[in-house]
Amino acid sequence: MLVSALLTSLGINSGLCVLFFLLYSIISKQPSNYEVYVPRLLAKGNSRRRSHFNLERLIPSTGWIKRAWKRSEEDILSSSGLDALVFMRIISFSLRVFSFAGIIGVFVLLPVNCMGTQLHEIDFTDLSNNSLDLFTISNVNIGSKWLWIHFSAVYIVTIFICYQLYNEYKYISSERIAYFYSSKPQPHQFTILVRGIPVSVCSSVSESVETFFTEFHPTTYLSHMVVHRTSKLRNLINEAKTLSKRLLHLQSEPSQHTYRHIGLFGQRVDLVDHYGKKLVDIEQSVRLEQSNVSLAEETRAAFVSFKSRYGAAIAFHLPQSTNPTQWVTEQAPEPDDVYWPFFSSSFMRTWISKLVVIVACILLTILFLIPVVVVQGLTNLSQLETWLPFLKSILTITFFGQVITGYLPNLILQLFLKIVPPIMEFLSSIQGYISHSDIEKSACKKVLWFTIWNIFFATVFSGSVLSKVSIFLEPKNIPAKLAVAVPAQASFFIAYVVTSGWTSISSELFRIIPLIFSLVTRCCKNTDELEVPSLPYHRDIPKILFFGLLGITYFFLAPLILPFLLAYLCLAYIIFSNQFINVYMPKYETAGKFWPIVHNSMIFSLVLMHAIAIGIFTLKKLSIASTLLFPLPVLTLLFNAYCRKRFLPI
Amino acid sequence: MLVSALLTSLGINSGLCVLFFLLYSIISKQPSNYEVYVPRLLAKGNSRRRSHFNLERLIPSTGWIKRAWKRSEEDILSSSGLDALVFMRIISFSLRVFSFAGIIGVFVLLPVNCMGTQLHEIDFTDLSNNSLDLFTISNVNIGSKWLWIHFSAVYIVTIFICYQLYNEYKYISSERIAYFYSSKPQPHQFTILVRGIPVSVCSSVSESVETFFTEFHPTTYLSHMVVHRTSKLRNLINEAKTLSKRLLHLQSEPSQHTYRHIGLFGQRVDLVDHYGKKLVDIEQSVRLEQSNVSLAEETRAAFVSFKSRYGAAIAFHLPQSTNPTQWVTEQAPEPDDVYWPFFSSSFMRTWISKLVVIVACILLTILFLIPVVVVQGLTNLSQLETWLPFLKSILTITFFGQVITGYLPNLILQLFLKIVPPIMEFLSSIQGYISHSDIEKSACKKVLWFTIWNIFFATVFSGSVLSKVSIFLEPKNIPAKLAVAVPAQASFFIAYVVTSGWTSISSELFRIIPLIFSLVTRCCKNTDELEVPSLPYHRDIPKILFFGLLGITYFFLAPLILPFLLAYLCLAYIIFSNQFINVYMPKYETAGKFWPIVHNSMIFSLVLMHAIAIGIFTLKKLSIASTLLFPLPVLTLLFNAYCRKRFLPI
Repeated sequence: MLVSALLTSLGINSGLCVLFFLLYSIISKQPSNYEVYVPRLLAKGNSRRRSHFNLERLIPSTGWIKRAWKRSEEDILSSSGLDALVFMRIISFSLRVFSFAGIIGVFVLLPVNCMGTQLHEIDFTDLSNNSLDLFTISNVNIGSKWLWIHFSAVYIVTIFICYQLYNEYKYISSERIAYFYSSKPQPHQFTILVRGIPVSVCSSVSESVETFFTEFHPTTYLSHMVVHRTSKLRNLINEAKTLSKRLLHLQSEPSQHTYRHIGLFGQRVDLVDHYGKKLVDIEQSVRLEQSNVSLAEETRAAFVSFKSRYGAAIAFHLPQSTNPTQWVTEQAPEPDDVYWPFFSSSFMRTWISKLVVIVACILLTILFLIPVVVVQGLTNLSQLETWLPFLKSILTITFFGQVITGYLPNLILQLFLKIVPPIMEFLSSIQGYISHSDIEKSACKKVLWFTIWNIFFATVFSGSVLSKVSIFLEPKNIPAKLAVAVPAQASFFIAYVVTSGWTSISSELFRIIPLIFSLVTRCCKNTDELEVPSLPYHRDIPKILFFGLLGITYFFLAPLILPFLLAYLCLAYIIFSNQFINVYMPKYETAGKFWPIVHNSMIFSLVLMHAIAIGIFTLKKLSIASTLLFPLPVLTLLFNAYCRKRFLPI
Repeated sequence: MLVSALLTSLGINSGLCVLFFLLYSIISKQPSNYEVYVPRLLAKGNSRRRSHFNLERLIPSTGWIKRAWKRSEEDILSSSGLDALVFMRIISFSLRVFSFAGIIGVFVLLPVNCMGTQLHEIDFTDLSNNSLDLFTISNVNIGSKWLWIHFSAVYIVTIFICYQLYNEYKYISSERIAYFYSSKPQPHQFTILVRGIPVSVCSSVSESVETFFTEFHPTTYLSHMVVHRTSKLRNLINEAKTLSKRLLHLQSEPSQHTYRHIGLFGQRVDLVDHYGKKLVDIEQSVRLEQSNVSLAEETRAAFVSFKSRYGAAIAFHLPQSTNPTQWVTEQAPEPDDVYWPFFSSSFMRTWISKLVVIVACILLTILFLIPVVVVQGLTNLSQLETWLPFLKSILTITFFGQVITGYLPNLILQLFLKIVPPIMEFLSSIQGYISHSDIEKSACKKVLWFTIWNIFFATVFSGSVLSKVSIFLEPKNIPAKLAVAVPAQASFFIAYVVTSGWTSISSELFRIIPLIFSLVTRCCKNTDELEVPSLPYHRDIPKILFFGLLGITYFFLAPLILPFLLAYLCLAYIIFSNQFINVYMPKYETAGKFWPIVHNSMIFSLVLMHAIAIGIFTLKKLSIASTLLFPLPVLTLLFNAYCRKRFLPI
């Protein structure tokens, strides 16, 4: 890739970003779009729908950028909770790390790379016609003494990152402790979930639980509630909730048109009346269903409540049975956080479904690109013409043809990638977790590994799936193979940060899909039930971490990546800070449990970087340097082990 | 190796065994050897030193063999504890497994192997001149359908072993539970050991502990005892104990000669008097030292006692601090079981010494054979002649020369191997364990891996250390390399079972080293302080498990190994059963905590066997079979994971 190509891409994407920012600051001010851009403020009643026209609405403003950038951590913590704070800390942590690495990279390593003549000399008279590779380590001469600067940079940056990681972990764990100290006693803290309750022939689950806990926890046991399979009741209650909301809304706005045809040919009826009757019906059904609950299928699981949080902690931490697969205890999730659909009370079933999900995930991760390539292959021009004959005339125009053949495969890949987080979330949900937050945490890990495999390794190691997998079956050769393959993709990943990174983050600000959805449904919906979304961490954390991985692995290979990465992180900081004010509201609180994922991902990136460095120095015939690098991954892993000992399970 | 060579070796070793048995049954009856052969009975007072001569003493008897073989488990459990029972169960478990495998191997696989013509046909007219390899799988023709019998045997034996492992684990865990139910309340069950106690400037460790536990465990906390560094006091007390024992002994046997010269030119004194005075001196020193104990260096560790076992369990299981490296709790060991010398109260020091020990162990395990080979190289004939010139005349005789050059290297290897268990025990002891039993458990694992590496892999993969290690860095090629190398060593390992196995077990019966030691010291010692030894599990469990590994990996390659293995196991059962009656007395009780090591070792052996089988079937061009074998190691590992979930931490 030439410098000019990068500059073009840079120009286009900067333009797009500015455009997005401008559009956002205008469109978000239109009252009709409030529910897309400021649902949170709407829900709180902070932002009223102003219907009177106002010229200010059409002038783009920049005040929100400054506000978002200057927002304090206390503010984020108090308004969006610890998870949001942790999320913002990921970005600010990366900003700190890559500012440091950026200074070293741009002012020290970049000049050294340029001075090399391994590929050929840089033509300073016509900079834009140079290959990007001239700015990478590939241009440093083989055996050159200058490589020791890269060597030192690897050591210094690793030490800096580890130091930062330690401080950050310490900070997060102190915040977690402060969170627990400050939180008021809540029911779920007094409760544990018990699964795998053994039942004798003559007694019910409830009796079994009662006997067990009154016997073994006589002073602290308070009460219990056996879990029943009551999907019918749950559906009825949901229906009643929707109806009552709708009814409230109708009653609060009496000016609205409340007559409607029921059915296609039904008579005109008063909606308030109609809904009221329906609600009474449902209420009766609920009563009936509730009285039958005790007859509903009992599961071998129960929520057991204790008189004190200490009592619950004891029951949770102590093994309850000589058979560890019975009386399995775990902390009860927050009431809003419980996820019922795949609830399973048996140890064996949970374990097997977990194994199945792990296998499914591994297969999905490894084999994902095969169907993508097949579908991409299907959508060539001639195929499109046979499928959509009306497009024939357009497709014959060369320009459109080129655009479609050029962008369609990429679009398909992006669409496939978009559905990965929901798939992973679904897989995690059938894995036996009881709470949304655990599911999200597990999905976050899955998406992260998926991204690293399917974007990093699939790009770096071209070839069949089998050949990629087989590389990891020969650990001895990994550094050598990485050293050849990774620098070769430097320009691709620089461009990737600019195109995919900048665009995806701007589209996050612009909320294209919710906007389109809102535009489409606006005409059909009469009652606007406002639902405040929560940030899907399992979609966005892996994205940021993946850019972190790119930054860490490429900082000494191609330091040119760092300025673009820093720009991405600044954008991300501003945009997410803004979205936390206006859009997202936390549904539940894991209290910062996402941090270990971040920590592990950083450690993995570091070790990967060391492996590449070892390979590179061997390739550059500086074997002393590669030998001297060997302790670094070991020390990094030891540091990680120490952090785990020091901070887990906080 | 020819069949005749094996038969010769078999003859010699059977003869040796019979000789050892005969000698044992005579020598052990001599009263002068009672303290070597029946120290346990002596200590209990069951066996009196009969000084009158008796003809029966010179006639070998066989009654003890029958007694040892027929001994019931309840008997072992009640007299030697759960650990001894687990030890005997290892042998009986192996007996069961290899009887089953032996029937399949000898009656099904062996005929199939013999029928093959891959190497060449068996000469049935002159059996003893056939190579042993003709009885192995190497003789089955490439691509032969008969290999499916081996394939089925691998599956059937794996399933059988897993089934047995599950039952055995279940039995052991039920025994463990029964042991805990039946044991009377003991002080160490009410106590935990706390390390890493944080101390503020103005308070002592003791105050710190008192404040902490009265605050957080007000209802259950009883008392505490801070650990002091009192090595001087300990030495004095040990000295006093030895003296008082000696004194008691002298007083109880007034007939003995109690006058002795003190020093080389000292005057004759009454020993009772002399010891009495010395004891008084020591008593005074102890008093003085004890009064200074509170001034001795306090460590940041304490034993904290609770009012109930439940209270102790709560304090042990619940994390005590927001910083997991402080207030680290563990169950207190039995008083007899505490090991002080390398006691460390700081988390960091324990962790670092653990890491150092792990590295040392790995290095020792991998590089052990290098010094051995060097030393073996030094002891060639000409070297010996220069070192020990007086041997020159003997060494020139060809026979002695041959014996020495033939046996000396082997003797050196055996001597080096003998010192490995103590070295590993030492390494484990500085690893931060507080109790003898934990040290022994950890040493047991280390010795096991050491044995597997230095006997199995070092024999199988000849070549430099680096080449051996590098095999494991390419996991993909392991089965292929194993398949070539392992069957080639079949005859070596068959001979190994006969020579090393049978001899070592007979020498265990005969207790050569204690016998020699007793003979040497008998003339110098006047007071025979009887010390009943305990079985060094970390020396003997790995030995038996290693033979188990040989049996499992070779049962389908060279079924001929199984009869010899069964003979070894029968001998081991009889001999150890006998030694538990007469010799060994448990010093402390881990209550069967050695079993997980046995379980893991069996699982490792199975997976290793599967890897070999996969490689063999590929080599024999039966790739369907090797593909169909792939699920087997996966299922075995899943079975292991299930067992861990089901039985740990019981």
